[in-house]
Amino acid sequence: MQDDEDMDFARRLSRIADRVTVALDQLIPPAQGPEADLMRGMRHAALANGKRMRPFYVIETGALFDAPQQSLLRTAAALECIHTYSLVHDDLPCMDDDDFRRGQPTVHKAFGEATAVLAGDALLTLAFKILAGEDTHNDPLVRLRLIERLADASGAQGMVGGQMIDMLESDSPRDINTITRMQRLKTGALISYSVEAGAIIGGANEAERNALHGFAHDLGLAYQIADDLLDVEGDEAEVGKPLRSDAEAGKANFVTLLGVDQAKERVRLLAAQARQHLAIFRKRANILLQSVDFVLDRTH
Amino acid sequence: MQDDEDMDFARRLSRIADRVTVALDQLIPPAQGPEADLMRGMRHAALANGKRMRPFYVIETGALFDAPQQSLLRTAAALECIHTYSLVHDDLPCMDDDDFRRGQPTVHKAFGEATAVLAGDALLTLAFKILAGEDTHNDPLVRLRLIERLADASGAQGMVGGQMIDMLESDSPRDINTITRMQRLKTGALISYSVEAGAIIGGANEAERNALHGFAHDLGLAYQIADDLLDVEGDEAEVGKPLRSDAEAGKANFVTLLGVDQAKERVRLLAAQARQHLAIFRKRANILLQSVDFVLDRTH
Repeated sequence: MQDDEDMDFARRLSRIADRVTVALDQLIPPAQGPEADLMRGMRHAALANGKRMRPFYVIETGALFDAPQQSLLRTAAALECIHTYSLVHDDLPCMDDDDFRRGQPTVHKAFGEATAVLAGDALLTLAFKILAGEDTHNDPLVRLRLIERLADASGAQGMVGGQMIDMLESDSPRDINTITRMQRLKTGALISYSVEAGAIIGGANEAERNALHGFAHDLGLAYQIADDLLDVEGDEAEVGKPLRSDAEAGKANFVTLLGVDQAKERVRLLAAQARQHLAIFRKRANILLQSVDFVLDRTH
Repeated sequence: MQDDEDMDFARRLSRIADRVTVALDQLIPPAQGPEADLMRGMRHAALANGKRMRPFYVIETGALFDAPQQSLLRTAAALECIHTYSLVHDDLPCMDDDDFRRGQPTVHKAFGEATAVLAGDALLTLAFKILAGEDTHNDPLVRLRLIERLADASGAQGMVGGQMIDMLESDSPRDINTITRMQRLKTGALISYSVEAGAIIGGANEAERNALHGFAHDLGLAYQIADDLLDVEGDEAEVGKPLRSDAEAGKANFVTLLGVDQAKERVRLLAAQARQHLAIFRKRANILLQSVDFVLDRTH
């Protein structure tokens, strides 16, 4: 990828998003047979206009190690299947009850609740099928490691566990420890997986893995606080979905607990820490460094 | 397993059920932290008193080849995670809306809908984590094959696709082809996987794999028709859940399309075919042969 090292960040992100969308279009089964609505629901959710930040981190972390493009792309697509299924299920009426997502009706609004439950289940399952396939990597142990770590990051002790905390009744008050645990599981685990996957495919050494882990940890936490700030300060049209502040729902978040000023200061500190972790990669990490500002400016 | 080759079928099934329940108890994370309700929901569903027919077929098919017990047990537990998650999601109000399952309240009745959605997601994810673990088999390619085939059997082109067909509005009339496709995907795919998994772990040759595939196909179809017959003729107390006949819900099934007599005749024919497929295994297949009668007598 030497030839486009100078490509500006936004163009690079957009090119990755396009490649991931094409890959998902090929990997999700065609809408055929009496069950065709299932695939339509999967496609509606997965091919929508997402930023594809998690795929970006898989692919750009792998690029640090000149990892094979096909391995990175398929792993990025699998991860996006997991992220997308979680959005489809989180949007259900019994969960966050959201009508719009990525600028279009949610799956249950467009296809009904049963199809939304099933499309989420099918996308979740597809993620593991993609990773198990020999096209993902020629070393079986690498494929198994990608599968095992994705299951850890997205299961009961990862993303789903975090979503469970988020669903708790608002009459059990949240303190900063609970909020931090929720973030680490609900959004942090998949962001960490995205850079870990790039490192696994790229064959990173221990120092490199630790640096990337620290980067993902600080970036993920900063991202969540920035997201909570957006809840308070954002503009609906820019986010593509109606804002429903946690405060309105009676739920504490980083901003309601820390206050706006301290939350902003914490984002700045975490962003600086995140950048520092990348120092060992020197110039090769330029695109990852540029991504920090983009990710934290949550008005895209 | 020579020592218990004469153990009668029911005792053997019950012993397998106990072992699978113990394995699931160890594999599902403990109920800890603010997200503990998630694990409680998973345990409520997975540790309930199920017949564990799919685990039975994994383990008894593997026993034909003297396959390692630990591999069979972990694979059986993973498959039961998939079967259980599908029950939890199918029971949701937006799906079949069932209040009881395995003689106890469904997960959404006991813990709420959000927890039921998430517990299902977490069980689905756990299945792949179990299969990826090196305790499942020392050959990485065997683990990957188990993962890939489970994803095929349970995903959009397997179980979830079948459930989607079952969810279609009753104003689109079902013919025998649609019903057959629905059965093959919704229940047939996982039953086929159960014997396939035993064959993969046991290193079956092509003739053996084909015989087992034919056995599972005929048994699965016979099972579904027997289930539809039970809908018409069964007794609620014996099934452990309220019966809601397809006819009442305005949905065609094998019995409404074929009539009771022809449906019973088809079950008999399929059962005979299923037994015939096992001929190449001679006496070693005795327990599998005995299982046919048990499975088709759907009043347990």
